Amino acid sequence: MKKFMNAVDDVVMESLKGFCAAHSDLVMLGDDGKFVQRVNPVDNKVALISGGGSGHEPLHAGFIGSGMLDAACPGAVFTAPTPDQMIAAAQAVERGAGCLFIVKNYSGDIMNFEMAAEMFEGRVESIVTNDDVAVEDSTYTTGRRGVAGTVIVEKVVGAAAENGFDLAQCADLGRQVNDRTRSMGVALTSCTVPAAGAPTFQIGDDEMEMGVGIHGEPGRERMSMQTASEISELMINAIMDDLAPKDTQDAIVIVNGLGATPLLELYLLYDCVQDQLQKRNVRIARSLIGNYVTSLEMAGCSFTVSLADQELIKLWDAPVHTAALRWNC
Amino acid sequence: MKKFMNAVDDVVMESLKGFCAAHSDLVMLGDDGKFVQRVNPVDNKVALISGGGSGHEPLHAGFIGSGMLDAACPGAVFTAPTPDQMIAAAQAVERGAGCLFIVKNYSGDIMNFEMAAEMFEGRVESIVTNDDVAVEDSTYTTGRRGVAGTVIVEKVVGAAAENGFDLAQCADLGRQVNDRTRSMGVALTSCTVPAAGAPTFQIGDDEMEMGVGIHGEPGRERMSMQTASEISELMINAIMDDLAPKDTQDAIVIVNGLGATPLLELYLLYDCVQDQLQKRNVRIARSLIGNYVTSLEMAGCSFTVSLADQELIKLWDAPVHTAALRWNC
Repeated sequence: MKKFMNAVDDVVMESLKGFCAAHSDLVMLGDDGKFVQRVNPVDNKVALISGGGSGHEPLHAGFIGSGMLDAACPGAVFTAPTPDQMIAAAQAVERGAGCLFIVKNYSGDIMNFEMAAEMFEGRVESIVTNDDVAVEDSTYTTGRRGVAGTVIVEKVVGAAAENGFDLAQCADLGRQVNDRTRSMGVALTSCTVPAAGAPTFQIGDDEMEMGVGIHGEPGRERMSMQTASEISELMINAIMDDLAPKDTQDAIVIVNGLGATPLLELYLLYDCVQDQLQKRNVRIARSLIGNYVTSLEMAGCSFTVSLADQELIKLWDAPVHTAALRWNC
Repeated sequence: MKKFMNAVDDVVMESLKGFCAAHSDLVMLGDDGKFVQRVNPVDNKVALISGGGSGHEPLHAGFIGSGMLDAACPGAVFTAPTPDQMIAAAQAVERGAGCLFIVKNYSGDIMNFEMAAEMFEGRVESIVTNDDVAVEDSTYTTGRRGVAGTVIVEKVVGAAAENGFDLAQCADLGRQVNDRTRSMGVALTSCTVPAAGAPTFQIGDDEMEMGVGIHGEPGRERMSMQTASEISELMINAIMDDLAPKDTQDAIVIVNGLGATPLLELYLLYDCVQDQLQKRNVRIARSLIGNYVTSLEMAGCSFTVSLADQELIKLWDAPVHTAALRWNC
């Protein structure tokens, strides 16, 4: 294992220190590193809190800032954060309008966020993202996994909270967005968790793991490598068969790198995705191409398609100023 | 070789198509793909044109837009673009104030941009970036290589051009910025050029190439892997010994991923870089952490330090709206 690190146990904290120093205008470490929070929480705005295992950066801390999250709780690499982290974060950023927990569907995250919601002395609602169509149930999941669709939920609900939506409205909107969002990923290589020291899985020089999870969980099928067009067709078919849009529909699309995929290839994939969606009368209204929800240094990508009406696109376009997403401000 | 592609010969063009479609508000393909240009060139503004081999994305096309470049000429992967590409780009975006070519110091790029400057019927100045302190002369270079410092030159001169600097002033400023900018990189793995189909170099499981070039050219030394703190000290020492700042000085710093390095590790490295610079009384006034000048899927990073006065920081902070950098607009 070759990684830029000092000691395995210090990787996450040293990285968080660097992150908060680099973006000190936006974020700061809370409570000895239990969470990262926005430097300027807003009174009477619903506080959005997310979190999960580290190793998926920029998710979630990279989305803290005006127009998106108020705090994020980082666990160890690929390990759920603990309830005390979430409670501490909620206490720090709740400003009279309640807290919304945005939780990716993994058993550990669900359990701990639920426990925190019960223990926090204040109003809390939770929404669970489960956009990954690859498999029902998985290594760490009952039901579908939550993956890059979470970024769309966090962005849209973040804008709504900033625009004065109350807690119930934010939760309702988040669930609606999750319901019309689907993703699927593919891996060409494994990643290596620092504490494990060896690749999570083995894969051949001509193989890919179709439907891989963001921790290297098995997907639908181990397949022979195919062209970018063929891979895109397989993945967009899986997504769109499940999503079943109306005849013509607008969508927000993410072509997401899992860590080691060159931007050169991600844009090539976007070209393929565009062709696939055009065939199905889906118009890409907005897109993100880059590394947004990663699996350490895994080579691979995921596609996310979120059906969007004008209201949703307006919330997507609303000002956002975070380390990883910034526009119109 | 596993890559998301269709045919080796189509990788660059299909990627450019995807790029221009994803950012059609900012850029468009010119002249059947000879170059990428800003959709709205500005009259009487110096036109900034850069270019070089592909495989370093987001460099250069990702920096086209208001406040930065007007056009970029992409060569094949790791191959200089041709003079006719540069001439076509200059003809498309020159709007009465002349063209500034920003060229990374590689023999092929230098030769072709020089030829284009001679053949273009209009005013042209050229500046050459050579910020890499790793080695004098290299596989493709007489003198030092131009690497991620180029991003700082393009940003600062881009802002100056937008603010009405004339051609000579832009060229002068670009040379000044280059003169006070230094970089060095390190690789943990090789990358694979699509047309070659095999890794550019071999490297052991416990080795790193200190001072690597952005095409996988040899650096200063093949060394045993060290901790992030030790690696940062080595690289910052090399940079700062060469740069020799005054007692206390502000700097713009880039911690750049070469392609496959997780953001988790890049922020950890930023934490280390900060410690190193503090010891030397250098204050980080602004920073960028992420993949800005890559080497396909190489695991590794580079550091760039650019000494900056208030005037330079003001130009750095000026509005920029490109695919890869966006702020204050």
